[in-house]
Amino acid sequence: MNYSPKFPVQWVQFMVMILSIASTGIAAGRTDIPRLSPTRGIIMEDPDLLSSAAVSDDLQTLYYPQTLDHFNYQPQSYATFQQRYVMNFKYWGGANNNAPILAYLGAEAPLDSSLAAIGFLNDNAVNFNALLVYIEHRYYGKSIPFGSREEAFKNASTLGYFNSAQAIADYAEIIMHIKNKLRAFYSPVIVVGGSYGGMLASWLRLKYPHVALGALASSAPILYFDKITPRGAYFSVVTKDFREASESCYQTIRNSWSVIDKIASQPDGLSTLSMIFKTCKPLNKSSELKNALENMYASAAQYDMPPRYPVNVVCRGIDGANENQDILSKIFAGVVAYRGNHSCYINPPTNESETTVGWRWQTCSEMVIPIGIGNRTMFQPELFDLNSFIQQCKSLYGVPPRPHWVTSYYGGHDIKLILQRFGSNIIFSNGLRDPYSRGGVLENISESILAVKTVNGSHCLDILAQNASDPEWLVKQRQTEVKIIRGWIAQYYADLKAILLKQ
Amino acid sequence: MNYSPKFPVQWVQFMVMILSIASTGIAAGRTDIPRLSPTRGIIMEDPDLLSSAAVSDDLQTLYYPQTLDHFNYQPQSYATFQQRYVMNFKYWGGANNNAPILAYLGAEAPLDSSLAAIGFLNDNAVNFNALLVYIEHRYYGKSIPFGSREEAFKNASTLGYFNSAQAIADYAEIIMHIKNKLRAFYSPVIVVGGSYGGMLASWLRLKYPHVALGALASSAPILYFDKITPRGAYFSVVTKDFREASESCYQTIRNSWSVIDKIASQPDGLSTLSMIFKTCKPLNKSSELKNALENMYASAAQYDMPPRYPVNVVCRGIDGANENQDILSKIFAGVVAYRGNHSCYINPPTNESETTVGWRWQTCSEMVIPIGIGNRTMFQPELFDLNSFIQQCKSLYGVPPRPHWVTSYYGGHDIKLILQRFGSNIIFSNGLRDPYSRGGVLENISESILAVKTVNGSHCLDILAQNASDPEWLVKQRQTEVKIIRGWIAQYYADLKAILLKQ
Repeated sequence: MNYSPKFPVQWVQFMVMILSIASTGIAAGRTDIPRLSPTRGIIMEDPDLLSSAAVSDDLQTLYYPQTLDHFNYQPQSYATFQQRYVMNFKYWGGANNNAPILAYLGAEAPLDSSLAAIGFLNDNAVNFNALLVYIEHRYYGKSIPFGSREEAFKNASTLGYFNSAQAIADYAEIIMHIKNKLRAFYSPVIVVGGSYGGMLASWLRLKYPHVALGALASSAPILYFDKITPRGAYFSVVTKDFREASESCYQTIRNSWSVIDKIASQPDGLSTLSMIFKTCKPLNKSSELKNALENMYASAAQYDMPPRYPVNVVCRGIDGANENQDILSKIFAGVVAYRGNHSCYINPPTNESETTVGWRWQTCSEMVIPIGIGNRTMFQPELFDLNSFIQQCKSLYGVPPRPHWVTSYYGGHDIKLILQRFGSNIIFSNGLRDPYSRGGVLENISESILAVKTVNGSHCLDILAQNASDPEWLVKQRQTEVKIIRGWIAQYYADLKAILLKQ
Repeated sequence: MNYSPKFPVQWVQFMVMILSIASTGIAAGRTDIPRLSPTRGIIMEDPDLLSSAAVSDDLQTLYYPQTLDHFNYQPQSYATFQQRYVMNFKYWGGANNNAPILAYLGAEAPLDSSLAAIGFLNDNAVNFNALLVYIEHRYYGKSIPFGSREEAFKNASTLGYFNSAQAIADYAEIIMHIKNKLRAFYSPVIVVGGSYGGMLASWLRLKYPHVALGALASSAPILYFDKITPRGAYFSVVTKDFREASESCYQTIRNSWSVIDKIASQPDGLSTLSMIFKTCKPLNKSSELKNALENMYASAAQYDMPPRYPVNVVCRGIDGANENQDILSKIFAGVVAYRGNHSCYINPPTNESETTVGWRWQTCSEMVIPIGIGNRTMFQPELFDLNSFIQQCKSLYGVPPRPHWVTSYYGGHDIKLILQRFGSNIIFSNGLRDPYSRGGVLENISESILAVKTVNGSHCLDILAQNASDPEWLVKQRQTEVKIIRGWIAQYYADLKAILLKQ
C-alpha cells in the first residue's frame, strides 16, 4: 500500500505521529496546561475519516475479553473489557509449517489509521508467509474499559489501569491466545512498533521472550527518561535539521522570538501579531504563537520525510519571502508554505483527539519524557522543570507521575553494559533527522540487539508503507531490517529442529 | 554460622521450608480446605522463637516506604507500607571498589529465620567482599500493608496486592534504593533465593537485568506450573526416595493405606486408629491420618538432608519394629522415629503460622502448583482437580486463581528453546532427592543459564549455612556455584572497565 496522494501530509503525519512532538509543550514545564496536547497545532482535520481507507477484505476484526489488571487480584481487577485486534491470514503459511506471525503493537491512537499507515507488515507478509496481527492499545479506539470513554477517563481511579506494563501484558495475552487458538505453538512472533509503540515492542521482547522471538522497535526513544539523554537533545536536533537545510532560514527563526516578544510587549502588540499571522482567533498571549511555531518546527523536523521534506518546505517559505519583508512576515511565509492556503492559521478550531486525551494521561503518569530547550538552539531556552510538571499533573488528575518508574521497570541506564550479555533479537531503528532519535539506541549493543539508523531518516519512516519513490537509503534500511529478522527466524527454526530431534 | 544443635530438626526444616510440601494437600483437590496449610503437621513449635537467634551486631534492620501497587496509578495504589530489609556491611569492599552485593530475596515467611538459616550469604561474604542484604517479602513478618495483619488479610480487596510481580518490583526498588543511597551504582548484585524465593530470584534476573547481574535460584520449581511438569512427579520422587532407602519400608508404607481404610470402615474404626497412632485428638476421619502421614513422608523426602537424613530415620523406625507387629504399628514406629518422643502425634494443637496463612492466598491466586498423585507410587492415587481447586479458592476468597498467569508472565514452556538465546547468569540448583526438583531446571540452558544438581541433595540445601560435617558432594556443589558467580562478576568488571575506558 502506498501513500494515497489524496491525504494531506498533515494526515500522514498524524498516522505515524505516535509520540507527540507537542508533548514537549508540557515537558518544558509551561503552565499552559491545555497544551499537553500532543497533536494540537498539527491535526486540523478529523482523523477518523482515515479509518475507512484501511478496510480491506483480508482484514478480520476480533475482540478479546482482556483482564483489567494483570498484576492485582482484587475483585475489580478481574473485570474485562473488549480489546480489538485485527488479523490478516492471506499470506500465512499456516500452523503446520510454523509460519511466522508479524504483530503490530498499537500505540497511543485508535488502531484504524495504523492499518493503512504501518506498511511494514503488509509489505513483508508474502516474503515471510506471515500471519499479520494488529492489536489496539487499551484506552484507545474500540478498546475502552468501563464500558465507555466517559467512564474510562473519569478520574485516576478509572485511568489507573492505563499504563505500559498492563498494555504489554495485554499484547502478550492476545498473542498467546491467537497462537493457542490456531495451534500455532511454534510459530515465531516478531513484534513491530513505532515510537511509543516501538518502546512497547522492545520491552515486550525483553519482558516476554517466550511470547515474541524478536522486535522491530522503530524510533523508540527508550533512553529519553530520567537524565539518560540530555534534556535539550530534542530541540538541538530540530535546530540542526533547520540549519542543515538553510543557514539563513535558521538565522531568521533564531532571531524571530525576540521580535515577537518586543511586539507583544507593546500596546496592542497581540493584535498586531494576530494580524501578521492571520490567527483564527485573537491571540491571548504571545506564548500561544510561540508554542505553535515551536511545534511546527519540531513537527517538520520529526517528520522530515520524502518526498516533501517539510523542513525544506518551511525554509523555502521563509527564505523565499521578499528580502525587504520584516522578519515575522518571513516566518509567516514559512507557516503558509508548511500548512498550505487556509483562511487562518496558528490557532484553528480543533477537537481534542483521542491521542491528545490519552497521551496527556500517559505522560502525566509514567511516560515522563523530560524535554527542555538548551542554550544553543534556534529557540529561546526553556528548562524542563520536573517539580512544576509533577504539580501540573497532580492538579489535573489528583495523582502525581512516577517519573522514574520507566527506568526502574525497563532499565535504560548503562544499557550497553546491561544488555550486551542479556537478551537478544531487537532492532532499534532510527532516522537521525528525527529529534527523538537522540533518545534511541544508536549503537549496536550485541550481535542481535542492533541499531539500524539512517542519516536522512525521520520518525518511524521505516515501518511506513513502501513507495516506488522511496530513496535508496530507505529501501536499504528496510532490506537490512528484513534480513536481520530473517536471520532470527532461520536460527529459531534450526533451534526448534534440533530440540524436536532430541525428543 | 552453623546449625545450632539446640534446634530440633523440625525447626530447621521450617527455616528452609519455603515451598510447602503440604500445599499438596490442596493440590490434590481435597475438600479438606483447612489443610491448605503448608506447615501443619510439621511445625509444632512457635517459629518466632527463632528470630532471637539471628540477631547479630553486624546486622542493621531498615525499612523502605514501599509502593503498594507498582502497576496501577489509582490513588490507593500510591499508598506505601514499611518493608523490612536487613544489611550487613562488615565484609563489604565499598562503593569505590564497585564491590558486590549479595541480596537474599525473602520468600513466604517472616525474614527473621532466614537470617540464620540462609548461610550462603554470610559464608561467602568475605570472599566476595560483599555487602549482604536480606529483604522481606510483602505481607510477611514486619512488611505488612494496611497497617496490620488483620487489615491486610481481611479479604481479596486488601490481599489483591499480594503477588509475585509486585514482590519482585519491591525487591528491585529496594536494591536500586540501596545502590543509589550508597552511590554504589556499579556494584554488581547477585540475588539469592530458595524454593518460591528461588523462583523470585530467577524471575528478577529475567525481568530486571539492570538490577541484578545474576541469580542463584535454589530448588526453584519454576516448571511446576500448567502441565509442563507431570503432575505426579512430586510424589513419584517421594516414593523413589523411600524405595531407595529401603525396599521393605517402601512396601510397608505402600500396603498401609488399605489397612487404614479397612479399619476406618469398621465400627469404632477411627477410635482404633486414634489409639494406634496416639493422636492428640480423636480422628474425625481417616483422611486426617492419611494426610498427616503423606505430609510426613513428603517432608522427610523434601528435606532428606545430612546428617540426619529423615527418610532413613522414618524407615529405620518402620523396618526396626518387631516383625510380628501389625503394619500400622510399624508405620507408627516410623512416626515416632521421625517426630521423637511426644505425648501424642498426628494432630497436635498448633497455631496457623504466617506462612500457612500467606501461602494459602498465594497458591489460591497465582502460585497454582498442580501436584497430584499418580498410579505408580507408594501412595493412593489422587488426581489434581483444577476445577475443584478453583472452586475452593473462590469460596475462600471470593476470587478465583489465575492458574496460567505464572507461565504467561514468566514463561516456562519450552524453556530451553526460549532461553538458550535469551538472558544469562542464572544458576538453577537442585538436589534430586527433593521432590520439587522435578519442577526445576535440571539441564544447562546456555553457557550461563546453568543447572547445578546433586544426586543426594534435598530442598534448598546448598544455600543453608555450611557445616564442618557437610558431605563432600555438598561442599563441591557450593564451590561450583561460587565459581560460576565469580565468573559472572569478573566478566562484568571487564565489561565495565572496557566501557569506562571508551568514555
